[in-house]
Order: sequence, then C-alpha cells, then structure tokens
Amino acid sequence: MSERLTHLDENGKAVMVEVGEKAATGRIAVARGEVRMKESTLQLIMSGEAAKGDVWAVARIAGIMAAKKTSDLIPLCHPLLLTSVSVEFTPCPGQGRVEIEARVRVTGQTGVEMEALTAVAAAGLAIYDMCKAVDREMVVGEIRLMEKRGGKSGTFIREE
Amino acid sequence: MSERLTHLDENGKAVMVEVGEKAATGRIAVARGEVRMKESTLQLIMSGEAAKGDVWAVARIAGIMAAKKTSDLIPLCHPLLLTSVSVEFTPCPGQGRVEIEARVRVTGQTGVEMEALTAVAAAGLAIYDMCKAVDREMVVGEIRLMEKRGGKSGTFIREE
Amino acid sequence: MSERLTHLDENGKAVMVEVGEKAATGRIAVARGEVRMKESTLQLIMSGEAAKGDVWAVARIAGIMAAKKTSDLIPLCHPLLLTSVSVEFTPCPGQGRVEIEARVRVTGQTGVEMEALTAVAAAGLAIYDMCKAVDREMVVGEIRLMEKRGGKSGTFIREE
Amino acid sequence: MSERLTHLDENGKAVMVEVGEKAATGRIAVARGEVRMKESTLQLIMSGEAAKGDVWAVARIAGIMAAKKTSDLIPLCHPLLLTSVSVEFTPCPGQGRVEIEARVRVTGQTGVEMEALTAVAAAGLAIYDMCKAVDREMVVGEIRLMEKRGGKSGTFIREE
Amino acid sequence: MSERLTHLDENGKAVMVEVGEKAATGRIAVARGEVRMKESTLQLIMSGEAAKGDVWAVARIAGIMAAKKTSDLIPLCHPLLLTSVSVEFTPCPGQGRVEIEARVRVTGQTGVEMEALTAVAAAGLAIYDMCKAVDREMVVGEIRLMEKRGGKSGTFIREE
Amino acid sequence: MSERLTHLDENGKAVMVEVGEKAATGRIAVARGEVRMKESTLQLIMSGEAAKGDVWAVARIAGIMAAKKTSDLIPLCHPLLLTSVSVEFTPCPGQGRVEIEARVRVTGQTGVEMEALTAVAAAGLAIYDMCKAVDREMVVGEIRLMEKRGGKSGTFIREE
Repeated sequence: MSERLTHLDENGKAVMVEVGEKAATGRIAVARGEVRMKESTLQLIMSGEAAKGDVWAVARIAGIMAAKKTSDLIPLCHPLLLTSVSVEFTPCPGQGRVEIEARVRVTGQTGVEMEALTAVAAAGLAIYDMCKAVDREMVVGEIRLMEKRGGKSGTFIREE
Repeated sequence: MSERLTHLDENGKAVMVEVGEKAATGRIAVARGEVRMKESTLQLIMSGEAAKGDVWAVARIAGIMAAKKTSDLIPLCHPLLLTSVSVEFTPCPGQGRVEIEARVRVTGQTGVEMEALTAVAAAGLAIYDMCKAVDREMVVGEIRLMEKRGGKSGTFIREE
Repeated sequence: MSERLTHLDENGKAVMVEVGEKAATGRIAVARGEVRMKESTLQLIMSGEAAKGDVWAVARIAGIMAAKKTSDLIPLCHPLLLTSVSVEFTPCPGQGRVEIEARVRVTGQTGVEMEALTAVAAAGLAIYDMCKAVDREMVVGEIRLMEKRGGKSGTFIREE
Repeated sequence: MSERLTHLDENGKAVMVEVGEKAATGRIAVARGEVRMKESTLQLIMSGEAAKGDVWAVARIAGIMAAKKTSDLIPLCHPLLLTSVSVEFTPCPGQGRVEIEARVRVTGQTGVEMEALTAVAAAGLAIYDMCKAVDREMVVGEIRLMEKRGGKSGTFIREE
Repeated sequence: MSERLTHLDENGKAVMVEVGEKAATGRIAVARGEVRMKESTLQLIMSGEAAKGDVWAVARIAGIMAAKKTSDLIPLCHPLLLTSVSVEFTPCPGQGRVEIEARVRVTGQTGVEMEALTAVAAAGLAIYDMCKAVDREMVVGEIRLMEKRGGKSGTFIREE
Repeated sequence: MSERLTHLDENGKAVMVEVGEKAATGRIAVARGEVRMKESTLQLIMSGEAAKGDVWAVARIAGIMAAKKTSDLIPLCHPLLLTSVSVEFTPCPGQGRVEIEARVRVTGQTGVEMEALTAVAAAGLAIYDMCKAVDREMVVGEIRLMEKRGGKSGTFIREE
C-alpha cells in the first residue's frame, strides 16, 4: 500500500489525482454498516403497515441515488459511470439493529469503495430519518469496506 | 414521542409530511461521529506536510456542503434555509480515532438533525477517501444526535 | 388572468420575475397524469413479487424528490421551501393505465403548480423506466393541473 | 422482450441492474410529446415580442439540461456520457398544440430512451411554466418513444 | 467594514457563519462583467442566423440557473430563496466586447452579491463555450459588484 | 478553426453537438485567472491565523468541485469523466492580486477547456466570498485558456 496520502500533493494541497494512466478494468466494492435502534423501534418497522410499506424501499433508493452522487459529495472523488448498485437490509430482531450492505460495480480507472460506503451511509441516514420521530438515540455506524476487486491493488477482503 | 413512523401514511406509503402548520422557530442540532483507523494512519495525517495541509479543510467543506444537500440526499427531508453549519475534528492520538462534530442551525418549521448527521457522515467519508490508499480498514461510525433544541418536541440531550 | 407571458420581459427576454412583493401565503397545488401501457404490463406490476415489491415506492420517491428539484429543472422557477409532497398511484386494471396524483404545499410567494406537475412527470417516467424492458410503447401523458389554492389569483379547480 | 421487470430483483426489490457485461455501442433514441393549450395561448407565443424572444430557447435548454440530469431524477437509471442532445418544437397553429421532439445519442452500455423522454417532459413543463399566467389548463402529454437504435435489443420504430 | 475574514473562525477554520440573528430584509445586488473576444467573433454572434438565434438566451439561462445554484458552488454561501434574477448583455461592436449585468433580489438574512457575481461568471462562461470553436483567446473578466442594497451594512455603489 | 458557432444549428438553435464520432484521446487544459483586491485584503489572507487556515483550501475545493459540475452549469457542455483536476494560487504581494491556475485532464471525446475555466471562476468567486466582508471592490477577472492539448484541433498555447 501507499505510504503517503495520495489526495494531497507534496505540499499538502488537495488534488483530484490523475488516474488517466490507469487501466479501465472491471471493479467491484462491497461495503457494510448498521443502524442501531431501540428494539421497539425495530419492531415498529418490521410489523403492521410499515412492514408492508415503503421503509426499505425509501432507504434503498436513498442508497442507490447517493452512490450516483458520490463525486458530488466527496470533494476529491472522480466521477464514474457506475454499472450497477444494489443495497440490502437485514433486520436483526432481538438485537435492535439493521445491517446494511451495498454492492457497486464499474468498469473504470478508479475503484468504487467510496460509492459503496456512501450508499451505506445514505441508506442508514434515511432509516434514521424515517424513525427519528419515535427514537432519537439511534446510531448509524460500522460503515466499512468488506470487499474490493479489480484495479492494480487487487483483491481486498476484510477479515472480521 | 410519536408511536408511529411519521414519514409513512396510514397505508405505509412514503410521504414528505406537511409541516406548514408548525411554527418557524430557532432550531439547533449537534451530531457526532468518528473515523477509526490504524494509529499509523492517524500519525500520518497529524504530521509532516499533511498536518499543515488540506486534510481537515477538505473534510470540513465536505461536511458543510453535504449539510446543504441533505434534502437532496434523504428522500423525505424538507428543504431548509440553514443559517449556520460548522464541523470540527478532534484527533485522538493513541486511540487511532478522529472525532467529528457538526453543529447546524436554522429558523424553520422542521429540525436540523438530519443535516447535522449528514454533515458528520460526509466529513467522515471524505477522511476515509483521503486516507484509503494507506488504510482500507477504517470504519466510519457512531454517527448520532447529541443535542437538539427548538421546535415543539423541545430539547434533547443525549446521555452517554 | 394575465394577457402576456410573465416570464419574458417587454423585449421577449427570459427573466426570473420578482415575487418579493407578493404575500407569503399558504398554497397548494394538485396535479395529475397517467401512464398508458399494455394491459399485460399493468398485470405484471400488479401481481406476483412486483406487486409486493418496490415499483410504486420507487416511482413515489422519484416524484417527491423531483418536486424538490423543480427550480433546478425549470429554468425560470423560483426556489421554494416545500412543506409537503405526496404522490399517489391508482392502477386501472382493464384499461392498461395507471393514474398519478401529486399534491404539494408551501407557504411562500409563488405557487407550487410546477412542483406538482414535475412530481407527476418524474413519477410517470420512473414507471416507464421500470417497465420498459417489457413494453416500449407506453405513453406518459395527461399531465395537468387539477387544483390550486392560495395566492392572489385564488382558487382554480379544473373542470373535466 | 423480457417478461419480467428488470429493475426489480427476484424479491421485488429495486436495483440498478448490472450492465457491465453489455457492449458499449452507438445508441440513439428519439422521443416525442406535446403541450396542448388554448389557441389564444399558442398565438401569444407565436406572435409579437414573444415570437422573437426566448420562449423556445428556454424550453430547449430545459430539455437539454434535463437529459443530462436523467440519472439523478430517475432512481434506477445508469449515468451515461451523452454525446449529443437536441430538442425541437413544432407549433401547430389551429390545433392549440406544440409538438416536442428530443433526440439523444450515446456510445454506451445502456440505451438513452429515458434521457430522450426526460428531455421532452422537461421541455414541455418549461413551456407550461412560461405560459401558465395566461392558461392554467394546458396539458403536457403523449410523451413516448418514437425510435431507438443500437444495443442488443436492436431497432425499435414506433408505429402510429 | 469588518477587519477579519468572517468565514473563518478564530483558528482560521472555515465555517458557514450564523446569520439567524440578522433581520430578513429586502436585498438587491447588481454585478457586472465582460467577455472580451476578437471583433470577428463578436460580429459572428451579432449577425446572420446566430443573431436571431439562441446565443443570448443560452447565456442568460446559464446565468439565471447558476444564481440558483450559488450555495452549491461556493462552499460557505448560505442557501437563499431568490425572488428574482435577470441577466442582460450589451454587445459593444468595435470593441470586441460583450458586457454582462446580473441583478438578483431576495428577502433574507444575507445579501445576494455572490448570486449576482455567479450569474455573471456563468453567463460569461456560456458565451465562451458557444464561441470557443472560432476563438480560443477570449477572456472572461471584470466580474465585480456594482451595487448592493439592504441589510445591516447598507447601500454600496461602486465608483468607476 | 471553425467559422461558425458549432453549438447552434443552421437555424441558430442551441444544440449539444454530436461528438460520438470523435476519437477518445488524452486531453488537457490549463486556464488562469485572478482576483484583484486591496493590498490590505491580500495581507489579511497572507498573515496570522488566516494564512495557516482554510482560505486556500476552501477556494481550491470550490474549483475542483465546480470542474466536476461544469456540464450542469454550462448548458451545452458534454458530461465528461475527468481524470484529474488541480487548482493552484499564487498571491502577488505588493500587487493586491492572487493568480489562479487550474489544470484538468480527461480521456474523452471533447476537450476540457470549459472545466478548467469553470474551476478558475469558482475558485475566484470563493475567494471573493471569504473576503467580501472586508473588501467589496474585488474583481475576478482575466479568466482565460492558457494551454490545450489533445483532440483533432491539436495543441494551443496562449501567447502573452
């Protein structure tokens, strides 16, 4: 791995680094995160009308659309033509927790880690938004890269 | 607090709820989060050229600009005319951790919790982006509301 | 009603007209439209997994989010702080048709007709997008203002 | 053609489907729509200062810029590097109607139907916006795909 | 006037400063700038089809729409509900120069200088874009505030 | 060079011109501009806390992010996948002037002149914004293309 911050030049100044020399290869990134909430909040979104309703769809769309906006949100990210984005939720009843996983692909010159992480963050924040009237103490967290394939640095699989 | 999800109607359908009847009051929200990283990564951004460089400024701007985009990112959020946004970082040497705090104000009909949380998330993701070439195992997390004032539901202070 | 185009000055030049003198009043607009499709396409989205799935939620979110972007899409529209947006769908089996209705509110100096119409158009286009692999001949149409309340010009109810 | 909705997975969940395996080919899409209005409204925009003014240019720019924003408006659309967009208007005096045609090209892995349809819708809404002070009963409609070339599904020409 | 940079805190850190205490007053700002070009380029846009065409309308719309995006472009700008924006061009034949003037109004807690300046810059860049195939040496310049009214700091008129 | 405006069709109508036939080649553009200010304003941003603070970083990020938004700001610009963007400032003490230089690269079918010019303009406007409380008479100007390489029209170097 690199030993310096590639997004800063030798004087510490921010730069959107040149990637034009890199090969355009198939790349994939998988990120995960979670929303921790009161068990009663989790029960509320898993039961009754809410369960059949739009909660998960709203959060999923938030994640997918945010992935497409990543280069507009993260100042030094390169724009990319994402070829796929998916976001999945796993409610963990009894643990007051919803797991979020985003999977993003591209054929391009830079990886899509930031896009996957951004999708997870936005999906988590959207869940927070929909539940905040009943639970202000939720925590969106553990947003991390699980897997990354393609590009010069090769495959990364997070060990947990 | 409410006992149902206010962002879904009685059939579970998503709606951007009417807030026109609410009073426009001064509101503030404070959110926090963190980026956990290898101690060596933290040292890298706290020393040499990086320390005097743009890392914190880039992350701060990412947070401030993301706060202004919240209603474009979170599907059911209302647009708001934020009157101030600030984002601060506290590196915790020895703990491999950077704490992030965002503070947002508005005079309006809804609160700014989502804006503060979004600022923290974007700032954390921007730090991840700048450091990812040296550390792929960072975690952005503990994104949570610390304080909220104003509006009908009154003051909330998180106990920790 | 006016007898000239208010968005052009006396020389025919486009202008975002001054509304600062207008009173900020409660305003509402309701717009409708439809997507016409093969009956078999309609059946597909009303049955099986699709029916329980995200089709309507995706289209609803597309409409709600587009309403918030109206001033970014329609060059001479004023930015507004929408206080509510809702979008509803009525599938009409036997007629190969889905009706769309959007309802938007604001307290402001201009009306929200364009926001309601934009929500309907985006929701219709999103339905088209999701169904286009099975039916390329769908038509998005009949996008029109049904009702408008508030502001100097008063109440308008479309007669049909 | 497909017999299922490609934008939903087997559980009915929304996904931005993988197109990375598709060949990047030259693609074109042509869409049409119309704005129906009072004959007097049409006369107003076809005569005097308005005729020499910015009405058509504003609507054309609205359409071109909206085509570029399609993946930001339609939740499951892929971002694309459009290589051309044009929008034309044909006023039909005596019929109280303006026809709109948009033509979009790309070299890419997915088609540009949605971009062409979105351009037509935005152009129609912009006309509505500029004329709404004199005519609230206009209808934006008949938004449909006329032609599509390129990609695996080949050529489509709408029969009318 | 202030003697320190209000957009930095006491430690030099960027902040979107609190304006919630300020009165919401009527405000106006007028900015000007110019595009300098070869006389032959100016003649080209003032004659033939171009003169009757969309050049000025495209640049005007670019300016108006950019004014609405100011808080998304300038990191520490507050979002504002602009109540009017107009952009005018004065070609100066014989001088190879087009003058641009933008006028923006708001009722709000901060001024609209940045919005007027941004409108001028975007309009100038749009002219550059349309003419660059015939003239690469154009210069967009002299972007400056001419007039400002409203708010605590009162009236400013540039002396020239 | 061309002898007509390529962004208008034969009837003077705006069009985003087809570039699909052009080869995707490596391209670079360098643009410059300046902010002229009172010498005391320049001293203020070059001394004390401001000098060590975020001023340059904020302006740099404004420029980099604006380059990525160019096709959203300039109506007839093509979207492009920029492969690098850098923005540098040279304060000129004694002259009350800051020079700005932006450098943008892409591998694509159109050049990146507009992206480099837009980065300079946004960076200049951001400096104006941060200093406007102490100096309202600043001028952002001399925004011009210095160098352009790649593409059919070949290399351009501005002579000064």
